[in-house]
Amino acid sequence: MIYADNAATTKMSEAAINTMLNVMKESYGNPSSLYGIGQHAKEILEEARVKIASVIGADPGEITFTSGGSEADNQAIVSAAELGRKKGKMHIISTAIEHHAVLHTLEKLKKEGFDITLLDVHENGIVRPEEVEAAIRDDTCLVTIMYANNEIGTIQPIREIGAICRSRNVLFHTDAVQAIAHIPVNVKDDNIDMLSSSAHKYHGPKGVGFLYAKKGIRLTNIIEGGAQERGKRAGTENVPGIAAMAEALQEADTHMAENAAHMAAMRDKLIAGLREIPHAALNGDAEHRLPGNVNFCFEGIEGESLLLLLDDKGIQASSGSACTSGSLDPSHVLLAIGRVHDVAHGSLRLSIGEEITEEEVDYIIKSVKDVVGYLRSFSPVWRDLCAGKTPFIL
Amino acid sequence: MIYADNAATTKMSEAAINTMLNVMKESYGNPSSLYGIGQHAKEILEEARVKIASVIGADPGEITFTSGGSEADNQAIVSAAELGRKKGKMHIISTAIEHHAVLHTLEKLKKEGFDITLLDVHENGIVRPEEVEAAIRDDTCLVTIMYANNEIGTIQPIREIGAICRSRNVLFHTDAVQAIAHIPVNVKDDNIDMLSSSAHKYHGPKGVGFLYAKKGIRLTNIIEGGAQERGKRAGTENVPGIAAMAEALQEADTHMAENAAHMAAMRDKLIAGLREIPHAALNGDAEHRLPGNVNFCFEGIEGESLLLLLDDKGIQASSGSACTSGSLDPSHVLLAIGRVHDVAHGSLRLSIGEEITEEEVDYIIKSVKDVVGYLRSFSPVWRDLCAGKTPFIL
Repeated sequence: MIYADNAATTKMSEAAINTMLNVMKESYGNPSSLYGIGQHAKEILEEARVKIASVIGADPGEITFTSGGSEADNQAIVSAAELGRKKGKMHIISTAIEHHAVLHTLEKLKKEGFDITLLDVHENGIVRPEEVEAAIRDDTCLVTIMYANNEIGTIQPIREIGAICRSRNVLFHTDAVQAIAHIPVNVKDDNIDMLSSSAHKYHGPKGVGFLYAKKGIRLTNIIEGGAQERGKRAGTENVPGIAAMAEALQEADTHMAENAAHMAAMRDKLIAGLREIPHAALNGDAEHRLPGNVNFCFEGIEGESLLLLLDDKGIQASSGSACTSGSLDPSHVLLAIGRVHDVAHGSLRLSIGEEITEEEVDYIIKSVKDVVGYLRSFSPVWRDLCAGKTPFIL
Repeated sequence: MIYADNAATTKMSEAAINTMLNVMKESYGNPSSLYGIGQHAKEILEEARVKIASVIGADPGEITFTSGGSEADNQAIVSAAELGRKKGKMHIISTAIEHHAVLHTLEKLKKEGFDITLLDVHENGIVRPEEVEAAIRDDTCLVTIMYANNEIGTIQPIREIGAICRSRNVLFHTDAVQAIAHIPVNVKDDNIDMLSSSAHKYHGPKGVGFLYAKKGIRLTNIIEGGAQERGKRAGTENVPGIAAMAEALQEADTHMAENAAHMAAMRDKLIAGLREIPHAALNGDAEHRLPGNVNFCFEGIEGESLLLLLDDKGIQASSGSACTSGSLDPSHVLLAIGRVHDVAHGSLRLSIGEEITEEEVDYIIKSVKDVVGYLRSFSPVWRDLCAGKTPFIL
């Protein structure tokens, strides 16, 4: 089996599982309790906070633990919006290729009277800093742009965008769910005010993530209740999950350079191989791209059939975001980079892990070629294309 | 060591840990993914939903997984409020002894224009159904009353309150975080429309819970994003945590009768023993009480010192809710049942587990007696009380 859907979720590392297990078994106290095992749990929690902060260049007090990336995105955006509302600043800038945790939160804010500008990401899926600058208005309270895209893997010019936001005194949030632990992310160097992360994207557990918010930014609660997380996120802390997240993040950070180099080489081999398929096109930018991400459109086929046949061959891949599977709509990301409806339907995302081998890459290339050929052999759309009845797009 | 703070959190059961471990290792797929291991994760998720629904008498489709009890409380109340707002019904009834996940959410709604009635719980900590009935108005959109209190363990007349709400066509939510898996809870028999639960209160993992909402009740998202949980709770599902929660709940439910009988006997022995301490009083109702809950006030001492000295003797207990520890304010629950400020400060909550032995109970009684005596021996407040300078209250 070749698991090539690491953008959807990853397998937990042995170290993360062991950390989780140890904390569950030995340190089950409530961190808010005064007695020994409670205080011990509190120490584990704070050690995790220090570890995580250190990886991204933040202070521990700037890290708030959440139930995952979606909650962190929601809280960051709602917090900035509340701060903006108080000052009469109700304009938010984002892009059309954000995760739905961002886009749906923005839609909710739009109903509350916020004005939302979604920037173009052009054909390569990359925002232009000068267009961010041009879009900032006197009433802009937030720019929220993802660090790296979950579908097409494009890496945004975050540092430049952050610098622009800082010079214009506008809060800058980045959904770094796909970036953290895969490429270097440093909130200070990158001029980031708020950042969201999710543990299960880097071999940590599901159901846990964190929000970085620069000191001085007042967070709005998404979950009200007890005084946990400095009163900003209620609910007994998921200590085992948080400890395992910190372990996974530190592990990934330690091996990032070597892992990224290997994955980028394998990614490029995959891209070169799949480009040999006629009427196929890489989605996103070839250069500014996550080391593990490959995303192609193949004309004349249905993405879902492609995935099921690849699964039969032992290859787990996806057509895009797992979060919206079941939806009949094509990917909003692919539409945003200009893929037409029919072509966007025939997409394949391979998000490889660091353990992938050259032989596996060869097997994936061969399998995709075979399956695309097979599906096209009885596709009426493909027949019409070949017969010249409809024009090829790719 | 005697862990007597199970109301704060519990140690995970072996079965729950094993389930968690197996799912983390073997079934790491994203339930939204189409391929085999994704669909396998989806099956685990849906099996957990069936198990949980079956324990509380619900349909699986009525269960929404959350990150815990606080999130479930928030979502239930916000959802009912949104439904009410649309109909111009902006009155909510609750009690003064709810968990802060409820009270703080109600405070937020109050700022948005909702009118909140907090019912009296009288000296025994129990709401009177006729007072619920009397408080319902034409514009009441929600009654939210906890099933059992986290500090003083009182069990509310939920079935009667539910019947009143149903007859008056008002939504009824109950925070059942302390009740579920400890006493029989059945949403149909108990006339409950919405119910919150948290896994770590019944030997399940931290960071996971569920919200039951009767079919037809439209939930409002607390976390926006992907289409998980029928679009009502975004974020990749915490499949290992959810599976472990279902396992823990089923396990607790299977042994509930025997566990409750044993714990109630041990609780009553504890209460009888601690009543021998002069100027001490049980908080809450002796009869309508969780099987594991003991809560006393001792005149003339500080609760925090009591806890630390008990910890030295190997007994982990608390003065009330763990969620508000660090706060200098006395418990809002103890104030609500009429304890004055000074007395409320000298409280002790022992929430025993099903594994507690008679010898351990004897040891706890002796230890508390010793520590209370020791603390009083140099307490100026106690000296003044004994000298008749200030009157005894208890």
